[in-house]
Parts: sequence; structure tokens; C-alpha cells
Amino acid sequence: MKINTTKDNLLHGVQMVQRAVSAKNPKPVLSGILFNAENNNLKLMATDLEIGIECSVTVTTIEEGSIVMPAKYITEIVRKLPDVPIDIFANTDNNSIEIKYSKSEAKLHGFNADEFPSFPTVENEINFTIPAKLLKDILKQVIFATSSDENRPVFTGILFEISENELIVVATDTHRLALKKVSMAKDLPYIKVIIPGRTLSELTRIIANDDEEIKITLGGNQALFTLKNSVLVSRLIEGQFPAYDQVIPKNYKSRFRVNVKELLDSTERAALITKSGNQTIKLDIQQELLIIRANTEIGGVHEELNSYLEGEPMQIAFNAVYLMDVLKNIDSEEIYFELNGPLSPGVIKPVDNNNYLALILPIRTA
Amino acid sequence: MKINTTKDNLLHGVQMVQRAVSAKNPKPVLSGILFNAENNNLKLMATDLEIGIECSVTVTTIEEGSIVMPAKYITEIVRKLPDVPIDIFANTDNNSIEIKYSKSEAKLHGFNADEFPSFPTVENEINFTIPAKLLKDILKQVIFATSSDENRPVFTGILFEISENELIVVATDTHRLALKKVSMAKDLPYIKVIIPGRTLSELTRIIANDDEEIKITLGGNQALFTLKNSVLVSRLIEGQFPAYDQVIPKNYKSRFRVNVKELLDSTERAALITKSGNQTIKLDIQQELLIIRANTEIGGVHEELNSYLEGEPMQIAFNAVYLMDVLKNIDSEEIYFELNGPLSPGVIKPVDNNNYLALILPIRTA
Repeated sequence: MKINTTKDNLLHGVQMVQRAVSAKNPKPVLSGILFNAENNNLKLMATDLEIGIECSVTVTTIEEGSIVMPAKYITEIVRKLPDVPIDIFANTDNNSIEIKYSKSEAKLHGFNADEFPSFPTVENEINFTIPAKLLKDILKQVIFATSSDENRPVFTGILFEISENELIVVATDTHRLALKKVSMAKDLPYIKVIIPGRTLSELTRIIANDDEEIKITLGGNQALFTLKNSVLVSRLIEGQFPAYDQVIPKNYKSRFRVNVKELLDSTERAALITKSGNQTIKLDIQQELLIIRANTEIGGVHEELNSYLEGEPMQIAFNAVYLMDVLKNIDSEEIYFELNGPLSPGVIKPVDNNNYLALILPIRTA
Repeated sequence: MKINTTKDNLLHGVQMVQRAVSAKNPKPVLSGILFNAENNNLKLMATDLEIGIECSVTVTTIEEGSIVMPAKYITEIVRKLPDVPIDIFANTDNNSIEIKYSKSEAKLHGFNADEFPSFPTVENEINFTIPAKLLKDILKQVIFATSSDENRPVFTGILFEISENELIVVATDTHRLALKKVSMAKDLPYIKVIIPGRTLSELTRIIANDDEEIKITLGGNQALFTLKNSVLVSRLIEGQFPAYDQVIPKNYKSRFRVNVKELLDSTERAALITKSGNQTIKLDIQQELLIIRANTEIGGVHEELNSYLEGEPMQIAFNAVYLMDVLKNIDSEEIYFELNGPLSPGVIKPVDNNNYLALILPIRTA
């Protein structure tokens, strides 16, 4: 393989795929990035066998071919290269790589491209497109509710459920749940898959342009996200996602309306004196007043906010972090907070649309 | 104590002094910040008994008095306060503190101000002023050469030596040394003190305005730095600073001139493939060419730079990190690199002035 390119092109490519490289992977070749030059196109690929990212950049190909470069070193070197034409030459006989810039050069030992796993294909597929910006907004509003406990994989993933022309996206760690509904442009067959939260975080990261359309292909045990110059593939999570519609209360005894920023600021201040772990804050919901209290051995915070209650006054306690996670990601000015009693989940909805809700279990206090 | 003030004033004050609070201090009151309101001036003070920082901010004093606030919590709360008038009330009977903002409030438990150590005074003093910008520039060019090994305190400090109208500032960790000379506006009596590197780092940080003059007062075992609205005091380090003039070679066998940015960039790339610890790079100095090489089991880097040699060609090896530390803090475009052989220290000087030098011991290679 012999190519000529620019620092910026190379840097874009390695930065796009580099996050799919797993540091702890036992197979040495997977610590690398596959470079494949064909025509005047350089395809870079990395995978940890759970997710894979592929990215194409324009180069001048002098000799077609493939090599696997050590991801850590090629990324660091490319980042430090001068802004001059870069020549890369890979000798497939001994897997050696030469990177030439100005009068200088770096040499690295690579791996044979044949050892690298091929990019998985998706079978029995269903596909649809979604604007990048919309997908990012959806994910931002649900991703915080995923669990990081690898022992219960289902909760580390995000449910994508499509029926007819509606996409429902749900995440829950059993203490809280976030749900977003979106209308789709076309009718689609019913499908329900669980996509790893990590996959969707990486997807958000590699979206270079908010204006592009992302093609999502689901099928077999794979999800494929096709962007303009890159592709992300991921295994799906097997298992039964909890029946979210049975968890979400259909009615409420009381609901109050409150400004998101004010509630977030007050919650943040109250959280400062709570302890890590169970960061309990208490909400005392009165007719036109919301009081937030936190009391620990450090001291106390007492916050008063304007709010508008329908239904009976109520007192309820929540984990401040769970509440902040929701409020930080709401894109409306005001929310409704729906309650059924101090031991029932609270449900937060934006005032100006009914496509989103977040549910939080309360904390039982003495 | 009862005061009324703004978030910005409070935040400025606590951020200025907060770094003098030691997290590991065994005396509880030292985990706090002393607030002392007198006239319409609030003086904040923190100390870990090694350094102390005092800062004054304008407030409206309703009732004079003092209290010690828990540094961690008061800093976090102030940072999160809304931009409204803030009332602080301290009850010195039970050391309770109330911070009121809009309709809300936070309460904290403090400490009695009488328990807080008083700000040290400096005796047998000598003092001079120096422009803040100049002092920052001096410190930037020497501070990296200090050691962090607390077992040899002398090397964790920076020598300030004044004779007549010259200030000489020197730091060394025995592997390298940096020296800066500055002319002073007035003649001063001879003095030689070792100021802790940490003190000088904190000083650099609290300089809010590059245009101000800093008054330095030295005497007894203390150094005092007086800024416009704040004061930093520090103990001095006792012990004998190495005789730096005996270490610095008076002559050289060879010297080469090279561009600082080019040498830094090449060194950074070469360092990428070296191992942590002894990050050996080799310099091959030829007539109009400097070659930098690094070779490890990861691969090799070969960099060629224009340089201009006077004297005999030479090969010498250095720790790349030591070289980068010097080059990052040189404010000239070109340096002279003076050498006496592969086992003698190399000396780096800016081409356009002789007020600065950095010395680096070479690495003996096979």
C-alpha cells in the first residue's frame, strides 16, 4: 500500500474510528486500525467485535493494498504531524509502515490485514433514515437513564421500537426511565431491538454534520448506522426489555408546573450538601409554591420556587442526581411533574409537547 | 457578622484563597476559610500553615465580625448561587452560617474565628516591586525544573538571589537547571532565599491582572507577595541551594543554532514512540543538519532539521521530556545549544538575549 494524503484527512479518519478500538482486547490485531487503499479512497476500520466503525477519506493512491496500524501510535503520530503532504508506505511482506513528511519519517510495526475481522453484514433487514440532529436530540434525552451494570445487559441498552410510522426510544436502569416518541416519514414493519448504550454514545460522537441523514439498518443481531463518510455497526443486546407501558402511570393525583432552569438550579444547590450515593432532596409541593429541602450533617438548603399545582399538596423525596439528569436534557422551558403519592413514581413531561417523558422512582424517607 | 454582597465578589474571594486550604490538614479549622468583615471590606483568608492567601472584596457590612466557613461547601455553594444580592449572616454563638438569596437559603456549620491562625508577619525585611507580567514570565521559564521529591526540599524550591540591582532566579532537580537574570530598578542588599515551587505556582495563579506591580517582601523565614487586592505569604525553604555557577559550563566545544518550534515539534514526535521514564532521543549534530532519532520496539522516528553548527559534529542523547520542557517555555524564535561532549551537560540559550539559560544532563547510551 502506498498513498499520499494530508494530515487533516488522516486525522479525521483515525479520530473517527479510533474509539472502536478496545484497549483490553486480547487479540493483538484488534488494537489496530485497518487501512485499506482502493482507487483514491482510504477506508479505515476499527472494531472490538462488539462495535465497528468504518470511515472513508480521499487520498492519492499510488499502490493499492491494506495494512493494520497500531491504533495508539498512529493516532498520536498523525496528531503531531506537520501540515505538509504525507506519504504512507506499507510493506505487506513484513508489515512495516513508513510515514514520510518533509525530510523526516516515522516507522511502525503493523499487522497483516488478513488477520483483521471483516465488517459484519446485516441480514433480514429493515431500514429507515432519520435526520442526524433529531437522532442526537432523542439520544441525549434518554441515554442518561441507561445502566452501566454489565451484569444486566438489557438495562445497558436502549430500546428502539417501531410500529407503523412511530419510533419509540426507551432507556431504564430500573430506578428511572426515559421515553421519547418520534413520527417517522414512512410506515415500517413492527420491530423491537435493544441497541447498546455505548454504541449510541459513539454514534453521537461520530456525527460530524448535524444536517446529514443517518440511515439505520436493523436485522439479525446487528444494527448498522450509515453516515455520509462513515459506518458504525454494532451487535444488538439479546433479552427482554421491561414492559415500559406497564410501569408508566396512566393518571396522576397531582401535577405541578415549574420552570426547568429554576428547578435545576435549586436542585443543584440542594445536592451540594447531600452525600454521594443516595442524594436525597425533599419536594414540598404547595399551591403556588415548591419548596426543596436538603438536610445533612453539613447543613441545610431551603429553596423556594414559583410553581402551579393542580390537585392535592404533596411531599416526596427524590435522588437529586436523577432529577438533574432529566432537567439538564429537557429542551422546553417548563415541565409538568405528575405525582400519585410519596411512594409512587414521579413523571416529568415538557409542557409544550407530549413526545417525551421521564419517570423517577421516589426515595422512601422516614 | 452580617454582610450583603454579590455572587461575583464572593466567588472571586473564595476562588482566590481556596487553593491555600489543605485537604489533608489534621486541624479541622484549617479546612475552612476565614471571613472577616470590617467597614465595608470582607477579608477572606486560608492557610495550610505553609502558605497563606488573603483576599479583600468590597461588601456592605451590616454587622462586623468573623467566622470560619467550611471551604469546600462555601466554594461550591457560591459557585451555584443565582446572580442576585446575597446576604450572609454568621451567628458567632454557635458558629452557624446562613446564606440568603432570593427567597431561598443555605445553612452551614462553621468554626470559631478565634481558632484560626493569624497571618504571619515578616521580620528583618527587604522589599522590592516587580511587574506581574515579568514575574510570571520568569517563573514560567524556571518552574518546570523544580523537583517534586519532598524528601529533598531544597530542590522543590526556587532560588531568588539578589545582589545589587540584579535578581537571579534558579531551579534545579539535579538532572536539569533553569536560570533567569533580571535587572532591578534599585540597588538592594544581598539576599538569597529558597521559595517553595508550590508557593510560586499559586502566586502565578492568583495574579488577576498582568499590569499590576507585585511587592515582594523577604525576611526571617517568610516571603510575602502583595498584590492589589490579595496577599500571599509562604514559609521559605531552609538549606543550602547547590552552587549553580559551578555546574554551568563556562565554555563550549560546539554549539548549534536551531528554530525552537521546529525542534520542539520534532522532539514531540520522536517522544511518542519512546517509553515513559527514560524517554531517550538521540541528537546527531552535523554541519547544517540536525538529525533526531528515537528507536524502540514500537518503531523509529527520524527527523531532519536545518541547524547551523559552530565547532565539531557531535552525537548526544537527552530525555525528550526535559528538552520539551525547556523549548515550550522559551520566548525566542531560535536557540543556541552549547555542548562539550556526549557526557557533559547541554546548555540552551535564546539567540537574542543572554538573560536565560537551561541546562540538561545527557543520557549515557551504549
